[in-house]
Amino acid sequence: MTTNRFFTLESRPDGELADSDLRRHEQPIAAPAEGQIQVRTTCLSIDPTVRIWMSDIPQYMPPIELGAVVRSLGVGVVEQSANPGFAVGDRVIGMLGWATHPTFDPAVAMVQPLPAGLPLSDAKVLSLLGLTAGPTAYFGLLDVAQPREGETLVVDAAAGSVGGLVGQIGKIKGCRVVGIAGGPDKCAYVTETLGFDACIDYKNADVGKGLDEHCPNGIDVCFENVGGPIFDEILLRMNLNGRVSLCGLIADYNEAGRPVPGPYNFGMILMRRLRVQGFIVIDFLDRYDQATADLLTWARQGRLMTTEDVRKGFDALPQTLRELLRGEKSHGKLVLEP
Amino acid sequence: MTTNRFFTLESRPDGELADSDLRRHEQPIAAPAEGQIQVRTTCLSIDPTVRIWMSDIPQYMPPIELGAVVRSLGVGVVEQSANPGFAVGDRVIGMLGWATHPTFDPAVAMVQPLPAGLPLSDAKVLSLLGLTAGPTAYFGLLDVAQPREGETLVVDAAAGSVGGLVGQIGKIKGCRVVGIAGGPDKCAYVTETLGFDACIDYKNADVGKGLDEHCPNGIDVCFENVGGPIFDEILLRMNLNGRVSLCGLIADYNEAGRPVPGPYNFGMILMRRLRVQGFIVIDFLDRYDQATADLLTWARQGRLMTTEDVRKGFDALPQTLRELLRGEKSHGKLVLEP
Repeated sequence: MTTNRFFTLESRPDGELADSDLRRHEQPIAAPAEGQIQVRTTCLSIDPTVRIWMSDIPQYMPPIELGAVVRSLGVGVVEQSANPGFAVGDRVIGMLGWATHPTFDPAVAMVQPLPAGLPLSDAKVLSLLGLTAGPTAYFGLLDVAQPREGETLVVDAAAGSVGGLVGQIGKIKGCRVVGIAGGPDKCAYVTETLGFDACIDYKNADVGKGLDEHCPNGIDVCFENVGGPIFDEILLRMNLNGRVSLCGLIADYNEAGRPVPGPYNFGMILMRRLRVQGFIVIDFLDRYDQATADLLTWARQGRLMTTEDVRKGFDALPQTLRELLRGEKSHGKLVLEP
Repeated sequence: MTTNRFFTLESRPDGELADSDLRRHEQPIAAPAEGQIQVRTTCLSIDPTVRIWMSDIPQYMPPIELGAVVRSLGVGVVEQSANPGFAVGDRVIGMLGWATHPTFDPAVAMVQPLPAGLPLSDAKVLSLLGLTAGPTAYFGLLDVAQPREGETLVVDAAAGSVGGLVGQIGKIKGCRVVGIAGGPDKCAYVTETLGFDACIDYKNADVGKGLDEHCPNGIDVCFENVGGPIFDEILLRMNLNGRVSLCGLIADYNEAGRPVPGPYNFGMILMRRLRVQGFIVIDFLDRYDQATADLLTWARQGRLMTTEDVRKGFDALPQTLRELLRGEKSHGKLVLEP
């Protein structure tokens, strides 16, 4: 008999997520109550934000409650439905969680049906249309940072699932795009496959010198995924009236709950009259269809490449998240098929 | 015979401004060359920004060159004119510098004639209409932070020349206004004279607890003059989609040139989707007349109070600036009559 396997959060991680912070369960699949559906998870998105949700620091969604299933974006297929909006066999996307056969209220889990006949693999759906990928890049760059043609855009975590799309959208909008990534392989991927104008290898080169070289006219727009010393180098080179779209601070996630100083060059916000804006894709949910349409069009035109790093095996979830946060993975969107 | 006394900057201060960083001169008054005017300085504005201009860190105007007169806003009277736009006897405002009888090109010094018959003392002109006072408060609050009726506005350095006006304009716009200032006298001034809803004494009370008490619905708008630990307490309590107008970072000025960490709660910008924007009043110069008109109207209606702390004696300039940056002065706009 098939069972539902799932991970619950038992304690808030102190620094890096430990296996002992989680508990693995195996239980009979629950039949859906009125309004609920039961889904077979086919692919889970591995995102840095999951680590934030595990802490009880102030954040944009409620933290995962202790004892609750670990929250995660995923794609699946409806196996049982007690909700008129969903039929057995529907392909869905939403917060399925770290569970193989979850049963839940689709509204609470922000689960939506995917368009029928979408010619994309599960992994590709997550890398292009998953909220934490394409729509995050789309709204964070276009609405929050508002790049103009001819401006210089710098993107860190450029080989990542968001950064890679941000840079390509920047190119579509006529920007000079400079990425920052760790290691020669990632940098080659960013320039050769994704078409950025340049990419700085922060593990083997001086980021400040690289920015001086590749941004001769300074930086107008920064799409910030990382924080820490790299962000400080970027801040120091921002042009007057530049814009920073603050999407993530990966460098700080494992420190959650401990004091980490902000950027040393914070004063540049004043000196260069910058606009620094945090955002979360959830604020733009009412325009999800617009983002989806544009992203699918650009992908069809060959102007948006995505790469997926597909892992397998439900029990590898904790280790896979750790690898993501350590920067150990290769490049592209990290997903896991349970 | 009257001479022109002036201070030049001889070395960039290391930490606090030292007398040895300056040189005092006394020379015959220079006759204006074609296009220039010669002014008798009647009142100088003492502003934290002067300390920034003395350093060669990245900033919004060129630093003061070594050997040049210390840059400063002031009011004066034209004594000699070789410029058709200015007549002898005109009252003017602009960057007169730390000089008693300077001769300069008015365009370079951003000097403008004041309206004839303005019923305001020199000190009042600087405290209400000086770029670093009223217009800074006006544009920084209304254009940059965009407060809405019923929102909670927090202003630090609330007894200062900018903060006091920011809070009063916030009240005019229907906000709940909470100030932060140092010492019971300043706090009484802020609530009783300026009409803020509350004022937290950061020298004698826990700022975090004070904010919790006086901002029961959180903080929507912050007008930030100070930086440092106070700003961290504010950041921690910002509401979703809050706005921070970054006007100054007084706490950091004496550290100019040395690494000072940014706010520890920088991550709140991400978590609460804040918009943090640096600005400088110079960007709004084309709308100076609009600000002046509104400020004069509100002052005439008794809705904008300003207080001036008038010092006397040209030679006291360095010490007066030091007192301002140490937070030792009482309250209101610090000015000096040479």
